[in-house]
Amino acid sequence: MDPTAPDVHDLRERLAASPFHASIGIEAVEASPGLVRLAIEARPEHRNLQGTVHGGLLATLADTAMGLAVRTAIEPGRRHATAEMTVHFVRPAAPGRIEALGSVVRAGATIAFAEAEVRDERGDLLAIARGTYSVTHPS
Amino acid sequence: MDPTAPDVHDLRERLAASPFHASIGIEAVEASPGLVRLAIEARPEHRNLQGTVHGGLLATLADTAMGLAVRTAIEPGRRHATAEMTVHFVRPAAPGRIEALGSVVRAGATIAFAEAEVRDERGDLLAIARGTYSVTHPS
Amino acid sequence: MDPTAPDVHDLRERLAASPFHASIGIEAVEASPGLVRLAIEARPEHRNLQGTVHGGLLATLADTAMGLAVRTAIEPGRRHATAEMTVHFVRPAAPGRIEALGSVVRAGATIAFAEAEVRDERGDLLAIARGTYSVTHPS
Amino acid sequence: MDPTAPDVHDLRERLAASPFHASIGIEAVEASPGLVRLAIEARPEHRNLQGTVHGGLLATLADTAMGLAVRTAIEPGRRHATAEMTVHFVRPAAPGRIEALGSVVRAGATIAFAEAEVRDERGDLLAIARGTYSVTHPS
Repeated sequence: MDPTAPDVHDLRERLAASPFHASIGIEAVEASPGLVRLAIEARPEHRNLQGTVHGGLLATLADTAMGLAVRTAIEPGRRHATAEMTVHFVRPAAPGRIEALGSVVRAGATIAFAEAEVRDERGDLLAIARGTYSVTHPS
Repeated sequence: MDPTAPDVHDLRERLAASPFHASIGIEAVEASPGLVRLAIEARPEHRNLQGTVHGGLLATLADTAMGLAVRTAIEPGRRHATAEMTVHFVRPAAPGRIEALGSVVRAGATIAFAEAEVRDERGDLLAIARGTYSVTHPS
Repeated sequence: MDPTAPDVHDLRERLAASPFHASIGIEAVEASPGLVRLAIEARPEHRNLQGTVHGGLLATLADTAMGLAVRTAIEPGRRHATAEMTVHFVRPAAPGRIEALGSVVRAGATIAFAEAEVRDERGDLLAIARGTYSVTHPS
Repeated sequence: MDPTAPDVHDLRERLAASPFHASIGIEAVEASPGLVRLAIEARPEHRNLQGTVHGGLLATLADTAMGLAVRTAIEPGRRHATAEMTVHFVRPAAPGRIEALGSVVRAGATIAFAEAEVRDERGDLLAIARGTYSVTHPS
């Protein structure tokens, strides 16, 4: 068995062990090499002043899905950090279940690129994100 | 008295009335035309798996500071929505007080541009953000 | 016949009439609603100091493909302007034929989103771009 | 004399030696550690179909200024490549002299961040850019 193959159970443990992700309720749905699908139940307290889900929550979900997808594509001992993230907010988001599918565009020796699509329960596109990730050996 | 002049008390009320902002503890520090300074106390539960403050929190703080700065620069009856946000993560962030200074680059009739600097208590730059905002008349 | 249907001959005329596009040799390959494919022959004079094709050329090609795709998705009398463009440079580009496929993500009343993929002759991905476009009635 | 100190004459030679930069007429104006100012004379052939200077030219100027600024901040033997660039187009640009001031935000061991302001002859802001640069040892 390939010890580096992504495993949704591992992802669930990682997310449960991450204080931030656990506190906002990010859930791992699916993982395969280069792809990670996460979900969140956007609750009324995630709304901004205009009654829609705050873009920061969509950005957080997208960044997490991209970062975990990058992890499936780099050697186990390496670390990744978000260097840059761009999010385009395509549609306002209502409270409810929101999913992000993160995928790796290219993972190199020191830089990786990923992107994510964020959709609501009906499959409508809410936001699209791209990120540049720095990949390093732990010091 | 200019009824459109930004007022840090108004901002505090707006943030207190926003479920998302209240839940993560975003605080209004300062406001003047085109400029809004916000702060957050990054707590241990805001850390990601690597022990640093999650980039999503910095992005949320930056987006909120930029959006509120845009509000100080548009006519009171108008609405703004984030169309796009780019964040460059310059340094890892440790738990503690984090401030974001949002400023308007240009506010036009239908589009506004803003940027934000996110710094820690020592003044070190953690992240820089820019955003494109759609400005509309309420329908 | 639908007068707003995109027509690759119209695109060719538009590009020929645009001093900048004509001068760098951007060619229209294909057009359908929401999609525009352009090509350029990257010549030795498009190289930067490191011998690869300058990123600015890829960014220009991507922006043009996205902007023309947006045109196919908005009413004929409207104008579009790039408000923001993000480009991720995935691989170094060698001189040779380079294509960009621009597609509309969503076109609204005042804002449109588009993206583009830039590939070399072998189909390898060189760059990916996204843009936010302001859509206005001519004044 | 510090052999790594930026020198506007070196920059001029580098730009003259770069086929792409020479062909579009990019000129070095000023250089100091972490800062590079470039200029271009936007000519009628740089206009797009709407009569304004094509955004691709502003993006190219900004990317070049940022990349050269990064060079002033990294060890001489290293190479830099643009991983990502974001440009916000704040105002339409008319033909005439256009300057870009590129500055380094932070230069690390493998990643550097830079930004640029693009202004016209009157000093009006036309575009603002940020970029993420991959820094490597030559292989």
